[in-house]
Amino acid sequence: MSPKIRDLVKLLSRLPGVGEKTAQRYVLWLLTAEESLARSLGAHLSTLRDELGPCERCGNVAELRDGHAICDICGDSKRDARLLCVVARVHDLLAIERAGSMRGRYFVLGRLLSPLEGIGPDDLPLARLIDRVRGDAVTEVIVATPPSVDGEATALLLKRELSPLGVATTRIASGVPHGGDLEFADPITMGRALAGRRAL
Amino acid sequence: MSPKIRDLVKLLSRLPGVGEKTAQRYVLWLLTAEESLARSLGAHLSTLRDELGPCERCGNVAELRDGHAICDICGDSKRDARLLCVVARVHDLLAIERAGSMRGRYFVLGRLLSPLEGIGPDDLPLARLIDRVRGDAVTEVIVATPPSVDGEATALLLKRELSPLGVATTRIASGVPHGGDLEFADPITMGRALAGRRAL
Repeated sequence: MSPKIRDLVKLLSRLPGVGEKTAQRYVLWLLTAEESLARSLGAHLSTLRDELGPCERCGNVAELRDGHAICDICGDSKRDARLLCVVARVHDLLAIERAGSMRGRYFVLGRLLSPLEGIGPDDLPLARLIDRVRGDAVTEVIVATPPSVDGEATALLLKRELSPLGVATTRIASGVPHGGDLEFADPITMGRALAGRRAL
Repeated sequence: MSPKIRDLVKLLSRLPGVGEKTAQRYVLWLLTAEESLARSLGAHLSTLRDELGPCERCGNVAELRDGHAICDICGDSKRDARLLCVVARVHDLLAIERAGSMRGRYFVLGRLLSPLEGIGPDDLPLARLIDRVRGDAVTEVIVATPPSVDGEATALLLKRELSPLGVATTRIASGVPHGGDLEFADPITMGRALAGRRAL
């Protein structure tokens, strides 16, 4: 195989979930599909990191203007600045936005507390979060980290750090998902669904 | 979401097997991984179609030089020019090359006969194949189209077209794959494995 293809396969196989075979499929497809496609993709990717960067306020993806980036959500004055939703990754922010019921703003941590991977409290942007909570006079922080061991540990840490500021800290509900079958729910999910029950 | 991201997601979701969610994952990853990655990918893809094209002799992927492309295999004088393996796609050629036992050259059809999709004999590069067989004084054509309805139909068509040239036309074996369990072989595969039995 041509070294040019080999290099491209190597680059593409660094994409998440892409192995060498998939990368090769992509390359062959790009070589046989209409020519404009590889070119447009190339042009877009070449400038991607010049045009987009993390929002300075929340970490969401934002368009860079004069070296500064403020995302649509942080720039939207109709959003409630006093309601702040903390997420681990931009992916999670987008998932919450898709639900369409969040009227506040976000803060992307970028990572979760993970003793196993050596990520401690000092590796999280806690100072920036506290500044944000103070600066925007936030009244409620919704902790929307995933319901995993690391996600729960991070939630507890945030609760501890934010309580002294007098801000309410809430946690998204965990339980049997919509359309999910109780029969197939794992014991932890079922336990949470029971513990989190509400009056009808 | 930024229109720049939306455009890129749209482009990426045209890759084979990539939906909108996967494309979005790729974009977020490209935005958060090291910056050089998006740039190198962009640079590679921008020039991909200028540097690579189909080999003029066989259709394999080849490097373009002064507007002409001859692939490594067609350019390799140690390959037996009289043994020609006909495949449907470049992917199939690469799979056969991985096996390492093909000492001849290739011819990529680009498509299979498919009455259901309206692809008839006139849509296949039969004239070019016949020229190749004649020009290289090919003695055996191995038809390595897939063992599907379309692949078998194509094989029969090739047999019919090539017989008058006095060239031997052979077909790759179909049967239970190596490591495969007889219990799980479908009836057609099992039938072929039995029909294609050989003396021990």
